[in-house]
Amino acid sequence: MKLLEERIRRDGKVKPHSVIKVDGFINHRIDVELYDAMADELARLFKNSGANLVMTIEASGIALACFTAKKLGLPVLFAKKVRTKNIDDDVYRARALSYTTDNYYDIVVSKEYLTPSDSVLIVDDFCARGEAAVAMLNLAEQAGAGVAGVGIAVEKGFQEGGALIRSKGIHLESLAIIDGVSGNGEIVFREQPHQS
Amino acid sequence: MKLLEERIRRDGKVKPHSVIKVDGFINHRIDVELYDAMADELARLFKNSGANLVMTIEASGIALACFTAKKLGLPVLFAKKVRTKNIDDDVYRARALSYTTDNYYDIVVSKEYLTPSDSVLIVDDFCARGEAAVAMLNLAEQAGAGVAGVGIAVEKGFQEGGALIRSKGIHLESLAIIDGVSGNGEIVFREQPHQS
Repeated sequence: MKLLEERIRRDGKVKPHSVIKVDGFINHRIDVELYDAMADELARLFKNSGANLVMTIEASGIALACFTAKKLGLPVLFAKKVRTKNIDDDVYRARALSYTTDNYYDIVVSKEYLTPSDSVLIVDDFCARGEAAVAMLNLAEQAGAGVAGVGIAVEKGFQEGGALIRSKGIHLESLAIIDGVSGNGEIVFREQPHQS
Repeated sequence: MKLLEERIRRDGKVKPHSVIKVDGFINHRIDVELYDAMADELARLFKNSGANLVMTIEASGIALACFTAKKLGLPVLFAKKVRTKNIDDDVYRARALSYTTDNYYDIVVSKEYLTPSDSVLIVDDFCARGEAAVAMLNLAEQAGAGVAGVGIAVEKGFQEGGALIRSKGIHLESLAIIDGVSGNGEIVFREQPHQS
């Protein structure tokens, strides 16, 4: 999505080890007009996916999930991160490794809100190693729910998450795929001609 | 707000100790149409508040903050919960007590995104003891920012948070104020004739 790529190029900050900081408009301060445009594009890309539910994970995935769900006329279910080891029979639970803290955490959704009759569109702001998306796919599988697709704002194409999800035959759309940073510090995006 | 009161009456589940569970449409599964209507009402109530920024706290406050900010044409800044004790010079930090876990946690915002020229509308989904809202007021004070108001979806009127915030002279609007549960299990809402 050209609009997002241009914004990352303009306001993203390239840090050591190819870390690109976008907290001025995505994951701390949220530019809601940009989110609205990203949601338009995800809704266009997934309008025929058959999804009846948008699933995301707290915290920063909630904004994009809500804007996208509004465009598609669907409800949102957000998986909660839990740190307790309590076994609760009323929830599905999956484990993920945090990219930022390198600690494992569990995510849960209530069995009441994810059922075999659901087909979920998974939405999140980032995909690097794919831990969060794969944990949500795991929750859907436990519930017997279908997966209509995965929509991501920013994918780090030089990490394995995107390839892993695509290798499962899942329709993944990332609105910007960063393949790396060139020698002169310029962010390199993967070409995606089918996107706006 | 009658629409929210009716929804809580219809789909909220009254649990022991006057706990009212609304996770089917507010804080786990999100009814985006309801959120859109709540955002319309908050935007109407605060349209002349002078706010230039909507501030909330991860996780479940993000949805209402984003929808409200979209109506008002403003960006969102969401405070992050941190569990590390690291002192970071680049952030303002405040402490709050979690209502659900009864543990203290810190919230932070980057100094870059909250400044003396800002006037914040604080938005959150719940207000019980007021810990989260007061911590956000504390962040605004540290930054020298003004406070344009506080908008809440559901206030538990039988706990002290709402009264505490109003006692500071802050314009607080809660779209539903639950004053308690009557002997026959009916939820009692506070009259708010100025709301839709």
